[in-house]
Amino acid sequence: MMDSVKYRLTVGYDGAGYQGWQMQVVGTGVQEILEKALAKLFSCGPRVHSSSRTDTGVHAVGMVVHFEVPKTEARMTPTKLVLAVNAHLPEDVRVLAASHPPQNFHARFDASGKEYRYLLWNHAAHHPLLRKQSWHVKKPLDLAAMRAAAKHFVGTHDFRSFRANPDYDTAHTVRTLTAVTIRGTGPLHTVVIRGTAFLYKMCRGIVGTLVQVGEGRIQPADIREILEGRDRRLAGMTAPAHGLVLWKVFYGKKAKGTQSADPNETGE
Amino acid sequence: MMDSVKYRLTVGYDGAGYQGWQMQVVGTGVQEILEKALAKLFSCGPRVHSSSRTDTGVHAVGMVVHFEVPKTEARMTPTKLVLAVNAHLPEDVRVLAASHPPQNFHARFDASGKEYRYLLWNHAAHHPLLRKQSWHVKKPLDLAAMRAAAKHFVGTHDFRSFRANPDYDTAHTVRTLTAVTIRGTGPLHTVVIRGTAFLYKMCRGIVGTLVQVGEGRIQPADIREILEGRDRRLAGMTAPAHGLVLWKVFYGKKAKGTQSADPNETGE
Repeated sequence: MMDSVKYRLTVGYDGAGYQGWQMQVVGTGVQEILEKALAKLFSCGPRVHSSSRTDTGVHAVGMVVHFEVPKTEARMTPTKLVLAVNAHLPEDVRVLAASHPPQNFHARFDASGKEYRYLLWNHAAHHPLLRKQSWHVKKPLDLAAMRAAAKHFVGTHDFRSFRANPDYDTAHTVRTLTAVTIRGTGPLHTVVIRGTAFLYKMCRGIVGTLVQVGEGRIQPADIREILEGRDRRLAGMTAPAHGLVLWKVFYGKKAKGTQSADPNETGE
Repeated sequence: MMDSVKYRLTVGYDGAGYQGWQMQVVGTGVQEILEKALAKLFSCGPRVHSSSRTDTGVHAVGMVVHFEVPKTEARMTPTKLVLAVNAHLPEDVRVLAASHPPQNFHARFDASGKEYRYLLWNHAAHHPLLRKQSWHVKKPLDLAAMRAAAKHFVGTHDFRSFRANPDYDTAHTVRTLTAVTIRGTGPLHTVVIRGTAFLYKMCRGIVGTLVQVGEGRIQPADIREILEGRDRRLAGMTAPAHGLVLWKVFYGKKAKGTQSADPNETGE
């Protein structure tokens, strides 16, 4: 049975040019690009299994994937594979690390948590350098109110009010967030969201709601009611995709409140 | 004599699309773009005076400029000016702040110091999101050696060995740096260089030399000899322009070791 070998890759990409991670009816997914590059190196044409499926325009620096090849095709060391696969990838997609995980490793099923980061630029004019990687919010934000609101998201809650598509995955909408923090001084802020698993567009629903708290349209104490209402119409807007980065995927003991990632998880 | 009014602007730009700050024989300078936008708002067509002249490909988030208009044309408040001028600028150039400085303010002559930041990405693969704003150095860098070398640059030295063009400004090559620090963990590092004034391509000469220290090609203790040698051939390479950002210009008491910026200063 030991006739195949697994590789684990950490992948980063600029989401601007892609219709998300997974192949779409229209447009190109990052997964497709990566599989095409791997097909140049492995004649078996391996299919990659990802920890997450990021949405159109969302970036990543820490996407984790695995794939299997027959042992006869596994001559390349992980270090050489990084160089070889990058030679076949467009410059907005990079394999940043590779390793041989245990043969029973699965990028999605074994993930114990994820960290997303969202970049907010709170200024009258957009950021000339980070304009494609930050959400430009013009109205001055009340950071203290946003930080007070952020605390209400931490813990195990039914996040039904914070996912985009009410038709998707109706059964399991309880998720655990271990941290929602807002870092930075001056006009540039980073919202760090860490949790065991995420619903579709959940991070962007949380960030959009936090910004509306910062603008005074939603009160921090309202977050609890919005969560309890279990209705997407109660929460704030969905923040635009281009500010969001899949920062890191955790495996094993690294994530607090560890539990297996939901196999139906889409993430963002 | 009080027939004119001064405006002070803070300007940011993505240097990728420009041949530096100042108009060139070939290509477009950011100054030209800004003056064209101001000409749409002020019929006098004001000329802008900048604190610095960044080189081709160098970015800025804190460039300071001033310009004068006749009092009869100065009806626009600084806050409105930010919005109005940005409406006439391409999206890779932004006016981030505006004010009315004292009538004797001069963006270049009054500058007491500047801070440049240089982004280094030390990894086998380039950074998929910051690939146009960081120098991709593949060989693992010895950060401790770089930090030891950085200390030798701080203070008042003849920086003749660290400017690019030996024909330029031969008389005055003594400059004072108040800080040269390397921040960051993981593969992303920021070199922060603060000083009262800078020679042409001096920051990039320092960063290129620091990277060669990190690669083991130059020893930290050699920096003192390189400075004392007063010969560009002794120092390391010039780091590429696209990693450098003019971060902030200081006025008045804010910079340590304050002295008037050299009127001949080109900076980078």
